[in-house]
Amino acid sequence: MSSNFADRLLEGIKAKGSPIAVGLDPQYSRLPLVIRENKELNDELDTESAVDAIFDFSTKIMRIIAPHVAAVKLNIAFFEKYYWEGIEAYYSLVEEANDLGLEIIGDVKRADIPDTNEVYSRSHLANPEFTNMEDLLAPDAVTVNPYFGIEALRPFFNIAAEQGKGIFVVCRSSNPEAHEIQDFVNADGKKLYEHVAELISKVGAEPAMMGNHGYSCLGAVVGATDPDAAKQLREIMPHTLFLVPGYGTQGGTADAARACFKDDGTGAIVTATRSIIYAYESDQYKGSPSWEKAVEQAVIDMKEQIKAVLGG
Amino acid sequence: MSSNFADRLLEGIKAKGSPIAVGLDPQYSRLPLVIRENKELNDELDTESAVDAIFDFSTKIMRIIAPHVAAVKLNIAFFEKYYWEGIEAYYSLVEEANDLGLEIIGDVKRADIPDTNEVYSRSHLANPEFTNMEDLLAPDAVTVNPYFGIEALRPFFNIAAEQGKGIFVVCRSSNPEAHEIQDFVNADGKKLYEHVAELISKVGAEPAMMGNHGYSCLGAVVGATDPDAAKQLREIMPHTLFLVPGYGTQGGTADAARACFKDDGTGAIVTATRSIIYAYESDQYKGSPSWEKAVEQAVIDMKEQIKAVLGG
Repeated sequence: MSSNFADRLLEGIKAKGSPIAVGLDPQYSRLPLVIRENKELNDELDTESAVDAIFDFSTKIMRIIAPHVAAVKLNIAFFEKYYWEGIEAYYSLVEEANDLGLEIIGDVKRADIPDTNEVYSRSHLANPEFTNMEDLLAPDAVTVNPYFGIEALRPFFNIAAEQGKGIFVVCRSSNPEAHEIQDFVNADGKKLYEHVAELISKVGAEPAMMGNHGYSCLGAVVGATDPDAAKQLREIMPHTLFLVPGYGTQGGTADAARACFKDDGTGAIVTATRSIIYAYESDQYKGSPSWEKAVEQAVIDMKEQIKAVLGG
Repeated sequence: MSSNFADRLLEGIKAKGSPIAVGLDPQYSRLPLVIRENKELNDELDTESAVDAIFDFSTKIMRIIAPHVAAVKLNIAFFEKYYWEGIEAYYSLVEEANDLGLEIIGDVKRADIPDTNEVYSRSHLANPEFTNMEDLLAPDAVTVNPYFGIEALRPFFNIAAEQGKGIFVVCRSSNPEAHEIQDFVNADGKKLYEHVAELISKVGAEPAMMGNHGYSCLGAVVGATDPDAAKQLREIMPHTLFLVPGYGTQGGTADAARACFKDDGTGAIVTATRSIIYAYESDQYKGSPSWEKAVEQAVIDMKEQIKAVLGG
């Protein structure tokens, strides 16, 4: 197994034949009825029942998607919702995902001053050092926020370089409100997100972070919602892997997703969350023999869609 | 008790006679020897012992500072370090602080797209809704990050307005690396942090957020490290409470702290962390009869310092 995260992710994408990371944002009220109707799991207002239900759902989803995709993205907000019980479930799911051979992206969006980033990077990215937590695993990569400065994130970069982990800095997010800040433009017409991209590209090029396939373990989050921005960012960050949210439910387009990839079809991993994990709710898949089959078909169809987008 | 967070904080500051929030960033290796030498608490590499030691220390600190300051700021990174056990301790400390009549600022620096902010704001700011968590309390206020757009933080604003809670958006952070992003300047010479300040000021002026003392429950984090920036930000955000880190250990100056206040001495709350909670390590206080006395004297001295800064 490659020791650089970018290499490992690229090899996983090749092996599975799809540059897709399935997002897990589990919400109790949208879980399949068969789970919610289980009498031990059917209390939304009891954290233990709710967490058990979400854990059951999430492990089943991961088993369904593992043959088809290289990575899973766990949105920690949906676990923090259940306080410490949710956090315990989050780390258990990291272990399950690891057993299934998936690369695990902890979608935690952390950032603070460097002293605090040192602490955040220990729990969210580094391999645990506690004697009573020997079996615990941290994710293979995390998302972080650039507002405190890219250099302020150095503790994350150090751990990534030392322990074969990855980081995705939010560069251009997929939500419409992002323009308020990210489109702030300087006298040369350069937007803030382009400036962030330049900083990411520069730091990511450091030898300790570069893998053997031309990409860095320092990646960027680039929404699939603006094809022009994606195209431009692809040029500014030639050795940066893009984590691409917003495709599907958030109104992202095939054009914008295409622009996140290089001509050779590498350079990005598209995340799909609600369109996959809640596929059984959609008109397209609700006739499936089971909720699991709906999810499986949705991920297979998405693989084909992305192949078509890439012209493959 | 006032139902607007800004009113409550201002009343607390007046009652205690000091615009200070003590920060709790507990690190095991810096705990007083008397705690670390307790044989049940002396294992840094066991999360249970370490969390018990940190919890013991933190509750003692809070009892010492409660007569002198209005607020405590809990940096969640130092609890996340211990995974779910740390998070359980974090919420227990919120309860302890509440029993002591302190306003509690959860220093969590969260932000994401609005759907996810909806979920984050539920666990970090809203009163819990779970039937098995009836005694649980969430902090009175949290820190958030502006990079996804100020409007993306709307779920936090809604909870603040509905439940009498507060928010501090990071505007100008105290770390030197901040300039990489926050000083990005547009064609009119406006820096990004000033732009962020304008957005904060505008949203904070909404009637649902304004209190009776001329301040909004939507505040801003403004470092005490740049007097000119602080002065300018004080003008851009006339009804915004500043949470001011960086005074003391991080090299902040009295001038910069002064500039965060209005002429009438209101408008800001200065945070002090390591200089207070680890006072017993410093040359100035290490002759104290106990670590507790050192901490108490440090907070009393800081009160006087800030009074002097404010010319009171």
